[in-house]
Amino acid sequence: MKKTILFAAAALLLAASCCHKNATTTADAVMANILSRKSVRSYTADSVPAAVIDNLLRAAMAAPSGMDIRPWSFVVLTDKSQYDSVFEGNFNMRMFKESAAVIVLCADTTVTRPPRDNPEGAAVTMPNPIWRDDMGAATENLLLAAEAHGLGACWTACYPFADRMDPIRRALQLPANVVPYSVVPVGVPAGDNQPKDKWDPSRIRRL
Amino acid sequence: MKKTILFAAAALLLAASCCHKNATTTADAVMANILSRKSVRSYTADSVPAAVIDNLLRAAMAAPSGMDIRPWSFVVLTDKSQYDSVFEGNFNMRMFKESAAVIVLCADTTVTRPPRDNPEGAAVTMPNPIWRDDMGAATENLLLAAEAHGLGACWTACYPFADRMDPIRRALQLPANVVPYSVVPVGVPAGDNQPKDKWDPSRIRRL
Repeated sequence: MKKTILFAAAALLLAASCCHKNATTTADAVMANILSRKSVRSYTADSVPAAVIDNLLRAAMAAPSGMDIRPWSFVVLTDKSQYDSVFEGNFNMRMFKESAAVIVLCADTTVTRPPRDNPEGAAVTMPNPIWRDDMGAATENLLLAAEAHGLGACWTACYPFADRMDPIRRALQLPANVVPYSVVPVGVPAGDNQPKDKWDPSRIRRL
Repeated sequence: MKKTILFAAAALLLAASCCHKNATTTADAVMANILSRKSVRSYTADSVPAAVIDNLLRAAMAAPSGMDIRPWSFVVLTDKSQYDSVFEGNFNMRMFKESAAVIVLCADTTVTRPPRDNPEGAAVTMPNPIWRDDMGAATENLLLAAEAHGLGACWTACYPFADRMDPIRRALQLPANVVPYSVVPVGVPAGDNQPKDKWDPSRIRRL
């Protein structure tokens, strides 16, 4: 009897400590994930379930977007027979072919809306001066979601480099107002990649 | 006795379910945080502890950086008497003054390094073509960390708008190669802000 009560008390304590951990865990889990994200450039032959890829895209689409324009669209490539034409000359080709999926994050550099000074007027197409900022946030969200799912990913820059963008634009037949912004291979990490510690208080000024 | 055993079993089950939840919680917690992030434009009078601000900056500095250049620096403002000159004419002034702290994310648009084709040569200063992408990722990391800490924040664009950048450059005496990229007020949310659901499968193409 005494043992059972002790056992019950221990189990309760364990439950309480777990639940307490859950209660304070969001900030810890999110910070740990942000600090754990790293560029992973080598992958096993394992595939990544479509539902997980969808989660990465869900994260990307949850990025903030200036004036709520949401300039993004996504091309998910898994058919490696197309890579030679889509990524022609790209020095990351080995990594793309080794990964389970390659996600091209594309951006509409324009916005079609009624003018701001005449919200009832006819829609006009104009440049969106801040599409690039939304795309940086969307790419980061995708990388953080990959890290959270135990996947490896790597942000490879595409815009503004013509030699990387041109084959993609041609092969994917992107319209003139759409640019391939970044290319992110995703896969199960091969090897033990460690994040960098980039904390540097000398970068902070307080006023 | 029977009751005690039942009680012990229930407590154990609770502990097991909590621990199981902890084991699978990183992806869930991170995804929930990404999907919960929203622009918060109204704050209570509560302050934000310096250690929490440091965590937000820690997250920002953990952003990926092309060629590991790390173009970022940060100005943390809490002395509201300076806001009129630093943010002169900025239409977000009310929000800045209401918030506990305003963080200006600055970027060095240049990089000083030996040339790539002569790594042993003397360092030269050249434009960094991808500083803006790093800054988008750093700003998003900061916003995600704020959300994780239960804080409200709002990404206000600064670059490339001269009328918003100029007073900041002047007041903070930024060197010519440094631009104020984004301005993020942070505080305890007043009111119940809800995130947008921006998931849109029509933005995805699969090849």
